[in-house]
Amino acid sequence: MLRGRKSSNIIEYRTRNGPFKDLHSVMNVPLIKHKTTEVVFNSILNPADRSERRKPKVQAVKFIKPQIERKRLEEASSVVSLVFGTNKIAWAHLERGRSVLEWQQEECDRFLRGAYQASVYLEDISPVVAKIPEADFFILEKPGISLQNTNLFPIMLHLRTVEAMLYSLLGARFQQDGQQRVLSMARTAVGKHFELMVGECRTSGAELVRQLLSDSVTQKHPRVAFPQSMVVRYRNMFRLGVRNHREEMCDALLQALAFYELLEGD
Amino acid sequence: MLRGRKSSNIIEYRTRNGPFKDLHSVMNVPLIKHKTTEVVFNSILNPADRSERRKPKVQAVKFIKPQIERKRLEEASSVVSLVFGTNKIAWAHLERGRSVLEWQQEECDRFLRGAYQASVYLEDISPVVAKIPEADFFILEKPGISLQNTNLFPIMLHLRTVEAMLYSLLGARFQQDGQQRVLSMARTAVGKHFELMVGECRTSGAELVRQLLSDSVTQKHPRVAFPQSMVVRYRNMFRLGVRNHREEMCDALLQALAFYELLEGD
Repeated sequence: MLRGRKSSNIIEYRTRNGPFKDLHSVMNVPLIKHKTTEVVFNSILNPADRSERRKPKVQAVKFIKPQIERKRLEEASSVVSLVFGTNKIAWAHLERGRSVLEWQQEECDRFLRGAYQASVYLEDISPVVAKIPEADFFILEKPGISLQNTNLFPIMLHLRTVEAMLYSLLGARFQQDGQQRVLSMARTAVGKHFELMVGECRTSGAELVRQLLSDSVTQKHPRVAFPQSMVVRYRNMFRLGVRNHREEMCDALLQALAFYELLEGD
Repeated sequence: MLRGRKSSNIIEYRTRNGPFKDLHSVMNVPLIKHKTTEVVFNSILNPADRSERRKPKVQAVKFIKPQIERKRLEEASSVVSLVFGTNKIAWAHLERGRSVLEWQQEECDRFLRGAYQASVYLEDISPVVAKIPEADFFILEKPGISLQNTNLFPIMLHLRTVEAMLYSLLGARFQQDGQQRVLSMARTAVGKHFELMVGECRTSGAELVRQLLSDSVTQKHPRVAFPQSMVVRYRNMFRLGVRNHREEMCDALLQALAFYELLEGD
């Protein structure tokens, strides 16, 4: 109930003055005010209260924040995975059967240009959010930039701004009955799942995406199924040698796939 | 129409090859593709187009971002000014006649505690936004922390996250007909207006707020009018010697007042 200085103050007070003579004298202890005593006394009189207040244990899924009941995640019939970079937002809409329903990106040209202005970010992000399809969960990439690297501060400020806006706009658009539907997924968890990590760094997932696109045509039970119309377009887009800067799109697709695969294999 | 390398490429091409023989040959110039030529030729054929596209000049109000038509600001019948700190959000609802309609703050205890999590921020900020009253404009304090001071970086990340979420949630709640209603106001502009600056730093506005509360009772035409019920409560709250940490509330009120006074005196 009490930790740190409050509890040590009580011990110190009793050592000096002996046991408390009445309930009221507890309030002579430094830091212990009316509210604290009320909470403590209540917890003694109604011990049940405390266990009731304890949150029911959820089976935590490590790679997803905030903590959410595993069952709800497993029952998701489709998720939209979003990945944002310095000037674009990409998303993949993947259903539980691993069919890609939508996969695209939007340019946000004014990101990181000139002075940071919340209104500019809002103007760029709102129309993107308006295009995001309905899904059971919206999974945002959790970028892992260390606070130690001061050179990357501006990038980090930028990414957190985009993250904060996506969280609140998606929340405002899709939230219902108070259920959390916007989640974060650790970028490194996805990287490790697909063996894309070199040390602490995650390497490009483009090669893997190319493979997935090929497999989708050649294999009977591919890991991810793309609609026929998509495969042709995207195989051209992602073919080797094309400098297309579509890393965010690759990452969005891989993150959606990792979400289902990690839940299954966990 | 064309700037930079595109225009210098055209000059270089003409220097080497002489005048263009036909319209199509323009596309031989490096960097000039079909789309560029279309835009340029169109602007020659329909010169009117161009001037039409020019935005009408707005009378810029320096201390407010984004740029907004002065007339719209002046016609605002009431504004809500919001100031956020490390663990609270304060707001003042002030009408054009300088009567305070609402003035309060909400604690956001989980800000800056433990790991930054967008979902926690959203959970703390959403209920605050739900309490914000309707107004013509919502003015957020633009905190002025320099990127140079790396120690303050966590604070800056925090403030930008709150700013980004307030922008998008207020936008989602109140935006209509695409009109910008969430604005930012430079903290130093308010500081200068009330002579609260010492060098580059803004000092506390609490003393000034105490004065305004007093004047509201004693003067016939006070700078700000508080409803009678508010004055008693707030004079106790802000009386000298009370360590109440209500800086954000003071700042929110002063910012709202500065908004009207600066517009008048500008």
